[in-house]
Amino acid sequence: MENPIILDGRKVAQDVKDRLKPRVEYLKKKGIHPCLATILVGNNPSSATYVRMKGNACERLGIRSKRIHLPEETSTEELLHVIHELNEDHSVHGILLQHPVPAHIDERAAFEAIHIDKDVDGVTSIGFGQTAFQFGRYPSCTPAAIIQILDYYQLPIEGKYAVVVGRSPILGKPVSMMLLNRNATVTTCHSKTKNLPEIVRQADMVVAAVGKPNFIKGEWIKDGAVVLDAGYNEGNIGDADYETCRPRSSAITPVPGGVGPVTISMLLKHTVDAAEAKLAGQTRHVSNA
Amino acid sequence: MENPIILDGRKVAQDVKDRLKPRVEYLKKKGIHPCLATILVGNNPSSATYVRMKGNACERLGIRSKRIHLPEETSTEELLHVIHELNEDHSVHGILLQHPVPAHIDERAAFEAIHIDKDVDGVTSIGFGQTAFQFGRYPSCTPAAIIQILDYYQLPIEGKYAVVVGRSPILGKPVSMMLLNRNATVTTCHSKTKNLPEIVRQADMVVAAVGKPNFIKGEWIKDGAVVLDAGYNEGNIGDADYETCRPRSSAITPVPGGVGPVTISMLLKHTVDAAEAKLAGQTRHVSNA
Repeated sequence: MENPIILDGRKVAQDVKDRLKPRVEYLKKKGIHPCLATILVGNNPSSATYVRMKGNACERLGIRSKRIHLPEETSTEELLHVIHELNEDHSVHGILLQHPVPAHIDERAAFEAIHIDKDVDGVTSIGFGQTAFQFGRYPSCTPAAIIQILDYYQLPIEGKYAVVVGRSPILGKPVSMMLLNRNATVTTCHSKTKNLPEIVRQADMVVAAVGKPNFIKGEWIKDGAVVLDAGYNEGNIGDADYETCRPRSSAITPVPGGVGPVTISMLLKHTVDAAEAKLAGQTRHVSNA
Repeated sequence: MENPIILDGRKVAQDVKDRLKPRVEYLKKKGIHPCLATILVGNNPSSATYVRMKGNACERLGIRSKRIHLPEETSTEELLHVIHELNEDHSVHGILLQHPVPAHIDERAAFEAIHIDKDVDGVTSIGFGQTAFQFGRYPSCTPAAIIQILDYYQLPIEGKYAVVVGRSPILGKPVSMMLLNRNATVTTCHSKTKNLPEIVRQADMVVAAVGKPNFIKGEWIKDGAVVLDAGYNEGNIGDADYETCRPRSSAITPVPGGVGPVTISMLLKHTVDAAEAKLAGQTRHVSNA
């Protein structure tokens, strides 16, 4: 293609945040100060950076950021205790546990301990199931960001053939379900996939969610395909090779400035949604609630 | 292919039940009588038949069958009340709500009300999420049956290209996730899919889960593909056109006598698993448990 649309995530994120501002003000008038609790375990520098970015983004929007930093040697039990306290804390509307946690911690147990009503980052199995069954409130933020970008730029999803490269619980699996629920035909690929280039070559829409720098090559991209790069590797490098994918695509997300900023805005939106749900005293049919 | 393997579901189901018998006897010795509660609402004759078949299968294996039949005019609230009572009933290890319920009932709310520890039919969103995240105990029974058949006949899944036609919460979506978790590359298709024949033609493995008689045509099937027909339409007709699909396939499930009998055996297995879990006093990390 001559001039692909460069999908500007900063613009999409700003639009989301502009629409959140009055909602935050209204909540405060009603005496509810939206609050996201972030948990960072250990001293992984990039995790520390991500968590700080998220906390700062909250505060710029008037959302309270309750920042919890636990030492590297924190045990699973200690982390679960902190999460249970935040589940009980009525001043906290959303809980984000920064991934990854140190290897000695049972990360899945920690994610599962987050109450569904505060799972604004969309990491629990019940949240995933509700998203897949189309009554979830807070889908995982990166998949939600990808849908938000497509909708902002009015790129159709229904009837398209989407190939998702990656199958993680917070990215590949939920984005596959969300695209499927929007009536795309979806193939989910992974490290055991044979003939990956041939499969990607058929896609109207490619989601790169594999966590390997420049993994998706331009020659794999069908002319006019939409490329959504959820990768964020060291040195601001995406999972799709931007220079070779861009000229083949009709629209593409850059890295940085693509999916990343929108992901954070989705976290803010879910936190405001959660505070509003509390104001409305909403309850849902949830197993074991 | 000259002689495709006819995947004999009755043989697979018998094998499952033979291995369950001693486990049931052991539980009884320990004073636990495995019990499946079945709920039928209204007078849909085929639903009545299915539920009777399941109850009888339980009793033939020595599993107690607690059969609840509610009138057509039962309200959602009344059904939820019955389910909550069964959740509390320590003599009941599994709960099956026969689908479909009358149109005036909120079926999803009813499914979601089943406690995860008793969701032996695999209908809740949390059960689906746990299955997708690979720590689920009781996947939906038909998807579990399809995997059971593949394993019984030692048909490899890893690295295969699987096309699932259908995206329902108890069939298309969970079987897609289960095949993905066994390292197949999975495409999920549906009514909005374009070029369905071309997609199916690439499949090493086709799961027909669309609910339309003889929908999948032989000319769509790649030579040597494995055809798994989860359809069961009026007059014992599957979703795949058996006469034209059989000669192209390397292995195929007949209808009747294919996926159906194994589905019931999976329900029995999950009920025994649930009774054993109770004996062991097992608990899991479950959101909101």
